[in-house]
Amino acid sequence: MKRSESFVKTLKNAPSDEVSRSAQLLLRAGYIYKEMAGVYDFLPLGRKVLNNIIDIIREEMVALGGQEVEMSSLQPKDAWVKSGRWDDDVVDDWFKTKLHAGGELGLALTHEEAITNMLTSYVSSYKDLPLYVFQFQKKFRNELRAKSGIMRTREFIMKDLYSFCATREQHEEFYEKAAISYTNIFKRLGIGDSTYRTFASGGSFSRFSDEFQTICDAGEDIIYIDHEKNIAINEEVYNEETFKMLDVDPAKLDKQKASEVGNIFTLGTKYSEALDLCFNDENGVRTPVFMGSYGIGPARSMGVIAEKTCDDKGLNWPEEIAPYKYYLIGIGEKGMKEAEKLYNLNPEQFVFDDREKVRNGEKFADAELMGIPYRVIVSDKTLENDQVEILSRKTGKSELLTTKEFISKIPKVLK
Amino acid sequence: MKRSESFVKTLKNAPSDEVSRSAQLLLRAGYIYKEMAGVYDFLPLGRKVLNNIIDIIREEMVALGGQEVEMSSLQPKDAWVKSGRWDDDVVDDWFKTKLHAGGELGLALTHEEAITNMLTSYVSSYKDLPLYVFQFQKKFRNELRAKSGIMRTREFIMKDLYSFCATREQHEEFYEKAAISYTNIFKRLGIGDSTYRTFASGGSFSRFSDEFQTICDAGEDIIYIDHEKNIAINEEVYNEETFKMLDVDPAKLDKQKASEVGNIFTLGTKYSEALDLCFNDENGVRTPVFMGSYGIGPARSMGVIAEKTCDDKGLNWPEEIAPYKYYLIGIGEKGMKEAEKLYNLNPEQFVFDDREKVRNGEKFADAELMGIPYRVIVSDKTLENDQVEILSRKTGKSELLTTKEFISKIPKVLK
Repeated sequence: MKRSESFVKTLKNAPSDEVSRSAQLLLRAGYIYKEMAGVYDFLPLGRKVLNNIIDIIREEMVALGGQEVEMSSLQPKDAWVKSGRWDDDVVDDWFKTKLHAGGELGLALTHEEAITNMLTSYVSSYKDLPLYVFQFQKKFRNELRAKSGIMRTREFIMKDLYSFCATREQHEEFYEKAAISYTNIFKRLGIGDSTYRTFASGGSFSRFSDEFQTICDAGEDIIYIDHEKNIAINEEVYNEETFKMLDVDPAKLDKQKASEVGNIFTLGTKYSEALDLCFNDENGVRTPVFMGSYGIGPARSMGVIAEKTCDDKGLNWPEEIAPYKYYLIGIGEKGMKEAEKLYNLNPEQFVFDDREKVRNGEKFADAELMGIPYRVIVSDKTLENDQVEILSRKTGKSELLTTKEFISKIPKVLK
Repeated sequence: MKRSESFVKTLKNAPSDEVSRSAQLLLRAGYIYKEMAGVYDFLPLGRKVLNNIIDIIREEMVALGGQEVEMSSLQPKDAWVKSGRWDDDVVDDWFKTKLHAGGELGLALTHEEAITNMLTSYVSSYKDLPLYVFQFQKKFRNELRAKSGIMRTREFIMKDLYSFCATREQHEEFYEKAAISYTNIFKRLGIGDSTYRTFASGGSFSRFSDEFQTICDAGEDIIYIDHEKNIAINEEVYNEETFKMLDVDPAKLDKQKASEVGNIFTLGTKYSEALDLCFNDENGVRTPVFMGSYGIGPARSMGVIAEKTCDDKGLNWPEEIAPYKYYLIGIGEKGMKEAEKLYNLNPEQFVFDDREKVRNGEKFADAELMGIPYRVIVSDKTLENDQVEILSRKTGKSELLTTKEFISKIPKVLK
């Protein structure tokens, strides 16, 4: 991308009502735009980061055997009445609306009801199970407060996977595979070291659910980490019974603020019974399907990563999800010309700051604010030795490479 | 994809309330699932077709210089009040909802207001213009009736591009480029021959707008085609004045039912004045931006293509957007083994009907219902001559190829 061609400009100030540090930086650096509290647009840079995260999650979901669909946001009331979740007294963050043709609709805050209902059209026998269906789909939640930037919003893309098994054993086998898959995802997103599988409240069908909590000062949860066992306990189940069941010593637990980047949950037959999703087992007995749900919020993950990696100068993306790898600046006439040549080798690798009449200092500051992993300077001076200067945003260390060496690092464009 | 692993089954019957022929087939063939009238989910096959269409449109939008964003569905009321479009008396297909924190929200039925408002943060000088921003984003429309399957829905993905120019001349130059781009898109989607640039009602800033109308019996519009000039006139502007302006002879016009697959519209300064999107021109004079909007509905296009190409046996996708190219059937023990080998060469190319205990006749019928461009049969008999049989869904013609010849047609998987 060329800065001269991008409609987005970096901003001196974030909107005054924005209190989240990561959101302030994402707004100033031109990744997102704020429509209102808890509702953000993704600008070209933000879209790229979000899609990089989505691509990683999708790869892991496909590897798990997941089949991808896209379900609707508008949800008819019936299925929710059957599951007992339509009333605002039961679920307090609904957005509801009315159909001109008559009747109430909800804006999907999750899709358990919808997918359970859908599968009654396709599941009839134990031979149809197990099966796993996922989507990246908008969710709407009518949050009373929304002050955590893109870490808690009223509208967001969520990856939700649902598992449908014939037996609890089949379910538990998949559940553990999914947990490993989640661990892989957070590793690939660059937050593996600070993300813990965390025991949290379960439901009628399991003692606990599993959250994936990332240590983060801006997080809204409190977790207690057992570093030896590499697990954590959500404060909601921080009690004697849990210590005993997990065989942990409360004196050794490390209390931390954290943000929930994913969760996996044993639903059992709650929804399949309510919505009559049954199959005939090997003996021809009609049996409700045993279900699980597995969520990750790509935008929340993006917010947490931004929050954890940023500094006073700006964002600082891990290479795996950065929108571009290099922030390219040409200095001097020759430098600018050579920079343009490098850019043209593979525009997908570079933010090329080709803006005229912008001071170099401002370009350096933007490179830091945007958090692009490497700043590359090509100046008349570095070119005297046929070199370019590479500065790592992460380590702050710079090195000089010959132009040839640098070019060898740039992936060729596939024609 | 392996049929044995897909959770979706083809259905004998579509829901009884589905009157649209293409929707009946899309439902039966397992491309979509109906949540309610006018609201559909996209199943794995449907998602693939939709994404193939989206990829083609995106390529053309990027080639036009478009910058891609993702805006929100939840829309604060203010901007719509300023433009005069909040009242249900003015816009009758709003879905509105309420924020728990207080205040009304709308579900975006279009994004003119939102993007105009957003750009006030980034545009200040004539040097910032022209610029073009697009997205693929959900729209919600509270249609009173929804009987045309995925050709008219209450929730759908729309590609909307907006152009922002300094002058009318700048705008008109881009507008014509966009029209050419649209012509390319419909050609690439396989409906170029039956899609006409159609003169329709304009607004305060232009005599006409341009619709792209595809001849289709299930279409909701009436157009009059001038085959010599290769243009059409929407019945809403079918009058003496139009004939005169376009220099057409009404006696030579060919009346047809058609479906609007795209439209481009000169907005002028309607929204920029209402929302104060201005720039300083070369003389420092504050001037409202001159705007245009350019829409395509990928799902409607999918519905129109399905409608135009289907027959009594099922769907019939053009190769460019088909979910898979080959429907692979192995017959006999050897045939099944060889089919499995072919499938493994590149699973992205095949629907492999590996289902046991399903009659071949049923597999043949599913191949036709799903509308996969080529059915490939590998049987013990064809293998006697080391051959496979390829049947074209489009022409109905079959040919025998040696296994080697067929393999040479399958793109290699990039590792």
